[in-house]
Amino acid sequence: MRVLDQRVLPRRLTYIECRTPRRVADAIAKMAVRGAPAIGLCAAYGMAVSATRLRGRSHAKVVEGLVASADLIASARPTAADLEAVVGRVLERARQAPPGFAIEAAVSEAIAVRKDLESACTAIASEGSRLLVDAEAVMTYCNTGALATGVSTGTALGAIEYRWRRRKNLKVWVPETRPFLQGSRLTAFELSRLGIPHTVVTDATCGHLMYRGAVDAVVVGADRIAANGDVANKIGTYALAVLAKRHGIPFVVAAPTSTFDLSVPSGADIPIEVRSGSEIVSSVWAGADEHMPEAFYPAFDVTPAELVSAIVCEKGVLEPPFEESIPRALRS
Amino acid sequence: MRVLDQRVLPRRLTYIECRTPRRVADAIAKMAVRGAPAIGLCAAYGMAVSATRLRGRSHAKVVEGLVASADLIASARPTAADLEAVVGRVLERARQAPPGFAIEAAVSEAIAVRKDLESACTAIASEGSRLLVDAEAVMTYCNTGALATGVSTGTALGAIEYRWRRRKNLKVWVPETRPFLQGSRLTAFELSRLGIPHTVVTDATCGHLMYRGAVDAVVVGADRIAANGDVANKIGTYALAVLAKRHGIPFVVAAPTSTFDLSVPSGADIPIEVRSGSEIVSSVWAGADEHMPEAFYPAFDVTPAELVSAIVCEKGVLEPPFEESIPRALRS
Repeated sequence: MRVLDQRVLPRRLTYIECRTPRRVADAIAKMAVRGAPAIGLCAAYGMAVSATRLRGRSHAKVVEGLVASADLIASARPTAADLEAVVGRVLERARQAPPGFAIEAAVSEAIAVRKDLESACTAIASEGSRLLVDAEAVMTYCNTGALATGVSTGTALGAIEYRWRRRKNLKVWVPETRPFLQGSRLTAFELSRLGIPHTVVTDATCGHLMYRGAVDAVVVGADRIAANGDVANKIGTYALAVLAKRHGIPFVVAAPTSTFDLSVPSGADIPIEVRSGSEIVSSVWAGADEHMPEAFYPAFDVTPAELVSAIVCEKGVLEPPFEESIPRALRS
Repeated sequence: MRVLDQRVLPRRLTYIECRTPRRVADAIAKMAVRGAPAIGLCAAYGMAVSATRLRGRSHAKVVEGLVASADLIASARPTAADLEAVVGRVLERARQAPPGFAIEAAVSEAIAVRKDLESACTAIASEGSRLLVDAEAVMTYCNTGALATGVSTGTALGAIEYRWRRRKNLKVWVPETRPFLQGSRLTAFELSRLGIPHTVVTDATCGHLMYRGAVDAVVVGADRIAANGDVANKIGTYALAVLAKRHGIPFVVAAPTSTFDLSVPSGADIPIEVRSGSEIVSSVWAGADEHMPEAFYPAFDVTPAELVSAIVCEKGVLEPPFEESIPRALRS
């Protein structure tokens, strides 16, 4: 299994070999692969890799090995719902397979995860593009394109891509998304390849653009969506939603249903990953005489449902109140 | 005249020799010196440097030379009010001096600018600290310390410094302030030297901190304040003000009266400097095969007066309606 190392894009196209579940967990934890759906897909394939390493063992031993891999991989990062969900899905399928078929079951389930994700993203892109059809200047955040899903199109960026195909006449604002720069490195890279006009700005410029009337819609992805519609997404999403509300700009979230977590009543209960502050300050302070300052780096924030205009998933466009539309979509 | 090169702090303490008005203008334009009051001070001393180079010329020639220097220096950056104001002040003093005394007049006026700024900043720090006395977690933005004023204390950061001296028990949130990183490089450096506890965050984290109840007050500087109280300041200030409003957090602006520009009725009329987009993306994309993406980098934004709780200047604390309190303060 080879994983594109997104940390060094756009400078280098480098792949990481992941022959063990530990390497898979490591690629996720260190953000070589990122984006909630791509993390899920990587985890599913990681479970398949783990399964093939257990060839020749008894059914019980295979399941035992997969449980260990599932624990390792699922704990690589805490916030994205897809990771836990997908790992559980592959494990369950293997566990319930007839004796002798657990490995094949795990592998075929990982492939099914990919197929489901492909069709979910295509549906999200198509449904989302309808919401953006009249927008001529769209702001997105972080990276939600094919790099973030691992399939042929993205979620929020998929909606933008499909909107562009429908009637061109579109410009995309790309906040750089510090500190990992998913915007200026990855989203700009994808939009460039797709031929869609775009402009990078610092994250702190977004409010000013809205104030100047330069943004018709904001569309972002999600890492976990609570039962009430509160959305955990890349740190900075909350500020964009507050600013969009002030300016009467639609704030759309695009994510597959695997992002919904009905076991979590509200955003307050979503685990927010705190990464090392050195990811913010080390490059700035390296070589300085003084001590590097303390830094606080929560990787995600929570946007309350009241600030979200619509959630686009593969089941269609969900509208408030989300505590009703989300369960309805999951049942449909 | 030697200017501390703030672009390489905290890694190196390097000074730039400025023996000509062109070098002074260059140091300002390229942000070796930055911060509205420090820019003004640097400009005043630049005028003095220019004057001493005109020794032996006639009064008319000295004034002519100073007019040329004033044009050159004042046009180095467009947004900070202090720059124009201070250059005009030194020029006017030289112009009105008796024949033979223009050079001395320019030099002594530059020294007077420094004295005035010193007492203004001390007054702002003292007055501002009263507003922050009950705040235990304060957020600032960009850098408004002694590095931004060129005198012994800052404006917004001066208020924080004096608040710390009054009763300790204070923590300062320092947004990094992309792309120049005045926060994580300069404010963190100054707070570290002052021994004041502080934590760096990305600019996009500020909303999340307010949402979590971790911010008691926001205090920022200003580059130009319009007659109605609209405030031009570092890009990103507007978003902080919107977020502070949503969370009921006081949003305080601290700046000397030289920042007020009554000739400008509202923020819409303040010239906003747009710097090269390469300052945002070039370091990220250097060496990539693809073309560097387009980037848009307005260096400032405008915060409407309705979002400002108070403006602290050397005349005291001004409260809304600012279209009344600002002219009153300037007359007092």
